[in-house]
Amino acid sequence: MQKKILSIVFTVLSTSLFGQSKEGKLSNLLYAHNKLMYSFRWLIILFLSAALPAQSQNTETYKYPLSEIVTIHSKILKETRKIYVHCPKLDSADLNKRFPVLYVMDGDNHFELLAQYVDYLSRPDISAIPKIIVVGIPNTERVRDLTPTQSISNYEGKPDTTGQYKSSGGNENFFEFIKTELMPIIEDNYKTKPYKIFAGHSFGGISSINCMLTHPAMFDAYIAISPSFWWDNEYLLKLTENKIISGSTLNKKLFYCNGNEGGSNSFFHKGLLKFNSIIAKKKIVGLDYNYKYYPNEMHMTVPIVAYLDALRFIFNR
Amino acid sequence: MQKKILSIVFTVLSTSLFGQSKEGKLSNLLYAHNKLMYSFRWLIILFLSAALPAQSQNTETYKYPLSEIVTIHSKILKETRKIYVHCPKLDSADLNKRFPVLYVMDGDNHFELLAQYVDYLSRPDISAIPKIIVVGIPNTERVRDLTPTQSISNYEGKPDTTGQYKSSGGNENFFEFIKTELMPIIEDNYKTKPYKIFAGHSFGGISSINCMLTHPAMFDAYIAISPSFWWDNEYLLKLTENKIISGSTLNKKLFYCNGNEGGSNSFFHKGLLKFNSIIAKKKIVGLDYNYKYYPNEMHMTVPIVAYLDALRFIFNR
Repeated sequence: MQKKILSIVFTVLSTSLFGQSKEGKLSNLLYAHNKLMYSFRWLIILFLSAALPAQSQNTETYKYPLSEIVTIHSKILKETRKIYVHCPKLDSADLNKRFPVLYVMDGDNHFELLAQYVDYLSRPDISAIPKIIVVGIPNTERVRDLTPTQSISNYEGKPDTTGQYKSSGGNENFFEFIKTELMPIIEDNYKTKPYKIFAGHSFGGISSINCMLTHPAMFDAYIAISPSFWWDNEYLLKLTENKIISGSTLNKKLFYCNGNEGGSNSFFHKGLLKFNSIIAKKKIVGLDYNYKYYPNEMHMTVPIVAYLDALRFIFNR
Repeated sequence: MQKKILSIVFTVLSTSLFGQSKEGKLSNLLYAHNKLMYSFRWLIILFLSAALPAQSQNTETYKYPLSEIVTIHSKILKETRKIYVHCPKLDSADLNKRFPVLYVMDGDNHFELLAQYVDYLSRPDISAIPKIIVVGIPNTERVRDLTPTQSISNYEGKPDTTGQYKSSGGNENFFEFIKTELMPIIEDNYKTKPYKIFAGHSFGGISSINCMLTHPAMFDAYIAISPSFWWDNEYLLKLTENKIISGSTLNKKLFYCNGNEGGSNSFFHKGLLKFNSIIAKKKIVGLDYNYKYYPNEMHMTVPIVAYLDALRFIFNR
């Protein structure tokens, strides 16, 4: 026990010393040295502290609301995964409440934005959505995890010779990791409601839709921002056409969209229109879906506006 | 010197211990106790650590990019002010760069959202705006600081009897604080460019425009989201009409907007239309302005979409 306490104190202390502390006052002088001398940082800070004149203001680190990094050793993926978890700000009315969970792929890119939106939209003076736990899944091997099939075809259906798609086709393993390793940890350690959302952009977009088609019990709502329907000669469009029986029931919310990714004639836009027409044609009972086109957004800026619309659509307020 | 080192170590250590650390694993159990037992938190954490079964995953605090709280003792406002500062993520190409500064009022509400937008839009794969330092000014006495005149009239021009506007009229003092106390500290301690933006919502919106009219040298660009032009029987609309000479020069960027705040007949919407027509009529040389109406947003949600549009408008990319 004593050893444990000491180890915690040591971890906290060393994280603080070599992490963010005391950078404030010194930012001006330190910027240029940060990259080069990271390991000597603490010594440099002490040296510069002595060299700086006294100032009338104090500086401390700004505390963002509670977010954590959970490290998971995945047997399925045979690797260690970092997972980001953002908990809602709680007040006394929330003490006995549980919260829906939003799982977002490409956690490195979209976790902070979604955490911010969720906090803002669920503020008591806004209440556009409920409070939500956001789980960000950063990538280790993006192409491997976020593609439904093994393929080296590019968006024109021609073989890609760069080798970038070599590891593709790991969606099934990735979903298995989420279902049997990640979700139990989240549900055991946070105040979760059963309601779950799966969100992704680009390759994350096709993964979200593939998950809806192949593991419909895993999530209640899906967000697919600029999904790369061109993947493997439109594999996912064919799967949608073949897998969904007209007039069948699927009690889900589904938001999909694209931006201006080469104009209205682009393979992105065409893929979305095809998907939208399949979904409309199938007349799926219980599926509440929304397609949005953002002609003023590029592929990398669509998520900024679309995540906002998607959250509001899913919670219908 | 030794005393200084010890004091820094102590501050860092105690902030860490009583701040965010080790909360991860225990969120589930701790939620209900957080509010009640804040001061005993460290002891509770140690106790629960011992009581919890071992888990296969580790948890650490998620580190958001560098933001700091600067405490300033203001002689002008005769009070201590907390200021939030968010620095951009730097890479090796940024080492010798300096950055524009965005000052945002109601820092308690909008600092995190703006920091997130600035980080996202300035990412190298997006480059919609340059990297920017965001300075959030949280409120102490909002009505006092963020109103241009002493008035107790409500939005209908009738006397407000609740006493909520009693302290109003402190804009001039507040601008003086920003100009002579806050800006020098920001400019001495961070890698600032001279280019400065002043942003506000509601009362912050009228403060932003009042500052442009009365202290045009302070900022280069202004954002006024749903400015409360109804204030003091439309004082600021009259000031705009009287202060700006037709055809005069004002080399600024100006973004203003409103949402659905009681429909198209609301006092908010009418105020914005009046302001927009005055600005258009004056044919100001060098003023690059943009008015946007968001009929699908409420008063409290306009900032979410408008800050995004405002940043892109100001940097024109």
